[in-house]
Amino acid sequence: MEITGKNFIGDRLSSLGEEHYKTFDSLRNVENKTLFISANTKELEEAVTLADAAFPIYRDLSDTKRAFFLKTIGDEILKISEDLIDIYCRETGLDVERATAERDRTLFQLQLFAKTIETENWRNKITKTAQPDITPKPTLTKTNIPLGPIAVFGASNFPLAYSTAGGDTASALAVGCPVIVKSHPMHSGTGEVVATAIIRAAQKTGMPNGVFSNLNAKSYQLSHDLVRHPKIKAVGFTGSFSGGNALQKTVFNREEPIPFFAEMGSINPIAILPQALENDCQKIADRIGNSIALGAGQFCTQPGLLLTVDEAHTDQFIVELTKVLKGLGQQCMINPELKKNYIRQSDKINRLEKSIQILSHKAQWDNQFVEPKLSVISADQFIAYPQFQEEVFGPFSLLVKCKNLKEIERLVFNLKGQLTGSIFAPKTHYKSILPLIQVFKSKVGRLLFNDVPTGVEVTAAMTHGGPYPASSDSRFTAVGPGSIYRWLRPITFQNWPKELLKKIIN
Amino acid sequence: MEITGKNFIGDRLSSLGEEHYKTFDSLRNVENKTLFISANTKELEEAVTLADAAFPIYRDLSDTKRAFFLKTIGDEILKISEDLIDIYCRETGLDVERATAERDRTLFQLQLFAKTIETENWRNKITKTAQPDITPKPTLTKTNIPLGPIAVFGASNFPLAYSTAGGDTASALAVGCPVIVKSHPMHSGTGEVVATAIIRAAQKTGMPNGVFSNLNAKSYQLSHDLVRHPKIKAVGFTGSFSGGNALQKTVFNREEPIPFFAEMGSINPIAILPQALENDCQKIADRIGNSIALGAGQFCTQPGLLLTVDEAHTDQFIVELTKVLKGLGQQCMINPELKKNYIRQSDKINRLEKSIQILSHKAQWDNQFVEPKLSVISADQFIAYPQFQEEVFGPFSLLVKCKNLKEIERLVFNLKGQLTGSIFAPKTHYKSILPLIQVFKSKVGRLLFNDVPTGVEVTAAMTHGGPYPASSDSRFTAVGPGSIYRWLRPITFQNWPKELLKKIIN
Repeated sequence: MEITGKNFIGDRLSSLGEEHYKTFDSLRNVENKTLFISANTKELEEAVTLADAAFPIYRDLSDTKRAFFLKTIGDEILKISEDLIDIYCRETGLDVERATAERDRTLFQLQLFAKTIETENWRNKITKTAQPDITPKPTLTKTNIPLGPIAVFGASNFPLAYSTAGGDTASALAVGCPVIVKSHPMHSGTGEVVATAIIRAAQKTGMPNGVFSNLNAKSYQLSHDLVRHPKIKAVGFTGSFSGGNALQKTVFNREEPIPFFAEMGSINPIAILPQALENDCQKIADRIGNSIALGAGQFCTQPGLLLTVDEAHTDQFIVELTKVLKGLGQQCMINPELKKNYIRQSDKINRLEKSIQILSHKAQWDNQFVEPKLSVISADQFIAYPQFQEEVFGPFSLLVKCKNLKEIERLVFNLKGQLTGSIFAPKTHYKSILPLIQVFKSKVGRLLFNDVPTGVEVTAAMTHGGPYPASSDSRFTAVGPGSIYRWLRPITFQNWPKELLKKIIN
Repeated sequence: MEITGKNFIGDRLSSLGEEHYKTFDSLRNVENKTLFISANTKELEEAVTLADAAFPIYRDLSDTKRAFFLKTIGDEILKISEDLIDIYCRETGLDVERATAERDRTLFQLQLFAKTIETENWRNKITKTAQPDITPKPTLTKTNIPLGPIAVFGASNFPLAYSTAGGDTASALAVGCPVIVKSHPMHSGTGEVVATAIIRAAQKTGMPNGVFSNLNAKSYQLSHDLVRHPKIKAVGFTGSFSGGNALQKTVFNREEPIPFFAEMGSINPIAILPQALENDCQKIADRIGNSIALGAGQFCTQPGLLLTVDEAHTDQFIVELTKVLKGLGQQCMINPELKKNYIRQSDKINRLEKSIQILSHKAQWDNQFVEPKLSVISADQFIAYPQFQEEVFGPFSLLVKCKNLKEIERLVFNLKGQLTGSIFAPKTHYKSILPLIQVFKSKVGRLLFNDVPTGVEVTAAMTHGGPYPASSDSRFTAVGPGSIYRWLRPITFQNWPKELLKKIIN
């Protein structure tokens, strides 16, 4: 299919804006040919007005109908998969295998949310019948209803599963919220292909026009205009701390505060007990090394911090880990911007302290390829510079040598909020890690034992989020069926006769 | 018992501050004798530090132990009830009957939250066992844990049930969050008596010191210092829009955003169909009139807006309602400040439009007594002045005469968010009110049929909250067991052996 570079304002293609941009083929190191036209304020206004008008209609459709819409989106995506995977690869530098896996995850999520609203008590409906024996009290029925039109931001590192028809969109559409996506300028072509599938599905299943819009924009202005629009009732964002934080500030300046859920990544510390290395040094190095460099390290849960005790096996672990990372070799990053950031941010970290021992640091090429890096510092150095806690987006990890387990605990205690934390320890050392677990509990959304954090399973038992700045509100998850609760609020119906109640609530 | 006027910094009485104030006996129209000493920044710091240190200990106590603490707070309150009700009446102008009812509601809530954590799956624990048949995936267990120390603000109109040991405090303590209460300066004596009971209960049940502190303050500075403190992890507030909004701004300026739940009241519109008045004019006037003036109209759910259709029975309804309100006569307001606000705000509303017909407006006395007021305007007038949507805290209501039901719908569509909305209609007019119900759904936290909004039942089916500005986050309720979710976040444990998991999660 031809990519137009235009915006979807509801079901209508539109290109009134004056800002233009192109996406980049990192693997071939050339610009892609499509010219994307950023949406202007008029188009934004139209998209939001349509979404607002669609809301009361879409909200009150049966769960079956909305589920059918979601499943049809999946069908439509599948139909255009060849084109989709082609443009995906040309806009990300990622390979067909990854593209296919991410497409399948997207399809799975659409199915999952459809199933959730069709089969589960997701509205948490509770009825308390009047008790005529005490003071006459009316019957109360509580149920969840959707908030209204939601703004969703495409994520640079998940062009499918956390962008146009990704987790935020699917969860919001499932529960009755229209969605306006601000496509990511690094993969607006991928976004347009998916948007086409969503619009087709909306038309085929008779959804109200405006249930979905897709806006392009290279500069930040449109994003801020979108989240400050009075008719936008919540925001879903996956991306960098700086991006999330800037949008958060705009949301905070609204007259009406709205829920803003941003997943802003973290450095996902892994604490490794010396006794674990004693037994499994090579195996652990292999698992962690592969997690560090998976997908060129471009995952929110990439482990960027390794906390070890400076004992005999630690140096052996460093040697093994270096071997693994070197073995993985060079990898293509999604975009020149991300490559530049990776080089700049890892260099910045490495320059903070002269004593940093750089174990894996090669000259960088002209193209978008990079190599994994590993740096080693002491706990004192780590504590001295808060900058060591900044995320390096890419295959970089910082290994800290602590004096003992107590120092690891102290270091974790001083960490900012994280998506994940991991502990590697032999099963014989349960007792000694109990205090560390207690400290980690206050810091993370997910705590792992002898496991690496990459690979976020989409299930009801997943928490993808965590204390700030890992997310902007630790009470919610961005992954799994529970993510719908970001877009829902309770409402209680009091004293309504049963026959009327069933007509006014789903 | 003697009231000291001091602050509880954990279990220690402290009075280092330089600001002093007294509470007021509205019924007798005199100041009470106790001099209250506002907490200073040092005391605030101590209270927060203690709460922060108590948190990991308190968080990991068994549900049984925390439930026992809550029940013991109830026992201790009951023991000092005579003193409590005496000071309550002397600080509020409310009578013994109301004091007793509110005490009983407080005791009920403590019991309810104790029962909730002892008997219900409030942690929403979910385990997803590894499935060895597909790609090896680890077992995930998701559970809720508390956020950390919570700041709670005493409410002017609920000195017991929504203040020191009220809903916010009880729900936070139940799930493992230490609480720091900023007592309301209108009833700091009542607050101190209750705080004494909480501290005694904490000591008797072996809770860590710092699990509860009670701070006095007349000026606003301490409140803002409290909510901007980095160790405070969430805020519960019940009060005015201006107070809630000011605190919200301070929260938004924190480096780390935290959940801020404010219930800021509303005007609780009641739409009355002409056909309802045709059948039950007097009965409806009686119910609504009593709801308007209940407790001198000092409830968040007081109906301040009556939407009628200008037809034959409407004038009869106004006559009947005026009769009811006049019959209720003068009532004592909680505090001179609230009386002043009531006069000022109702006068302001009445002056907005010359054509306002004031149906119940008497000269006001030197003491703290007031009379109910009722004003009548047209829909056009209401729409012309957004000020008509401002809450008048007290026994005032504004009756709007609309041309027809469509105009009522349009008016509701233009309303800000509300705690409640009500529709009075005969059961024969289901169909005609369906569009109005749809409009109301986007505006309220609770929608009533042939019922008045005052009297908020404490049950799992209650929603006390609603779209902004009724509350700052419509996704939560301030009343009922569900209110605990304001203070909880999910955490997932991945790949932990069962025998260890049961030691690290409750």
